[in-house]
Amino acid sequence: MGGIVEHARLCFLFLSVVAAFAQCFNRDTSFVRNISNIPQSNFGRGGLAHITIAGAVSHGMKEIEVWLQTFAAGTHTPIHRHSCEETFVVLKGKGTVLLGSSSLKYPGTPAKFPIYSNSTFSVPVNDPHQVWNTDEHEDLQLLVVISRPPVKVFIYEDWDMPHTAAKLKFPFDWDEECFHVKDEL
Amino acid sequence: MGGIVEHARLCFLFLSVVAAFAQCFNRDTSFVRNISNIPQSNFGRGGLAHITIAGAVSHGMKEIEVWLQTFAAGTHTPIHRHSCEETFVVLKGKGTVLLGSSSLKYPGTPAKFPIYSNSTFSVPVNDPHQVWNTDEHEDLQLLVVISRPPVKVFIYEDWDMPHTAAKLKFPFDWDEECFHVKDEL
Repeated sequence: MGGIVEHARLCFLFLSVVAAFAQCFNRDTSFVRNISNIPQSNFGRGGLAHITIAGAVSHGMKEIEVWLQTFAAGTHTPIHRHSCEETFVVLKGKGTVLLGSSSLKYPGTPAKFPIYSNSTFSVPVNDPHQVWNTDEHEDLQLLVVISRPPVKVFIYEDWDMPHTAAKLKFPFDWDEECFHVKDEL
Repeated sequence: MGGIVEHARLCFLFLSVVAAFAQCFNRDTSFVRNISNIPQSNFGRGGLAHITIAGAVSHGMKEIEVWLQTFAAGTHTPIHRHSCEETFVVLKGKGTVLLGSSSLKYPGTPAKFPIYSNSTFSVPVNDPHQVWNTDEHEDLQLLVVISRPPVKVFIYEDWDMPHTAAKLKFPFDWDEECFHVKDEL
């Protein structure tokens, strides 16, 4: 019986790896791509829909990366920082961006800025920040541009956590699957 | 009489410089900015409306720059190249992107790709290209992201012009006014 369970486990593992390979190598490599056909996922984070429109791991970009992200009502990013520039264009909805300090030893009480459809903001390199959909009903949809891809994200548990204690997540959620597949070849 | 004309000429020049200074220094420096309030211009090119959403000269960006560009029916960019990555997201309309060679001595007959609302494409570093609104009625609206701002554009008269003969335009049209104002201070 134990043998059957072990066999099933290995079989599942094998199929997962095959599925990951298929997803990473069956990408649409056309010069012009339909954004509606690019796979989206929440990467285990409830209320998020992430699409990499043009990415380092997925499309070979070297200097810029563009994402389309949708946050359901009440959801938010982690508090985080990264050593790249980041520009947001709010396509739909409204929310709040929280911005901590990179010059103190910890982010501290963040400044809060309302964001709204057709607004833009750029987060300076290494400034800790968090984006919230503060609406009760409507999605918040953002077009996000970063430099120096793939992104290396340092995550804070709260605004009082020292910068040195923030935890590196690399490769980040949406780069993880295909980043590892590339490594394994 | 000649003195009056000269005085009027100097007065006009002075007012033009004051207007340029005012435009470059009265920018909205808020962290979150309303894109509808960012000035737009055609920079002397008929049928173009350009907005720098986040720029090096205008907003101090170092690694990425984001533009919103609208091309009237039948209008197009020059044939050009630049040593930066460029990603386009088509927000409205349809058209054609033409892509020449960077490995031959001149761009040569370009490949042609249809573009359409909710499509994306990325132009490799230094590849000569041209974007056309091929529609007879509808605007073509693009969100454009570049790396290494401010952009240094080399312009071709046609697809048979050698790469070495393409003419550098720097600072480019939308950076010109405030780039010079910065130099003059």
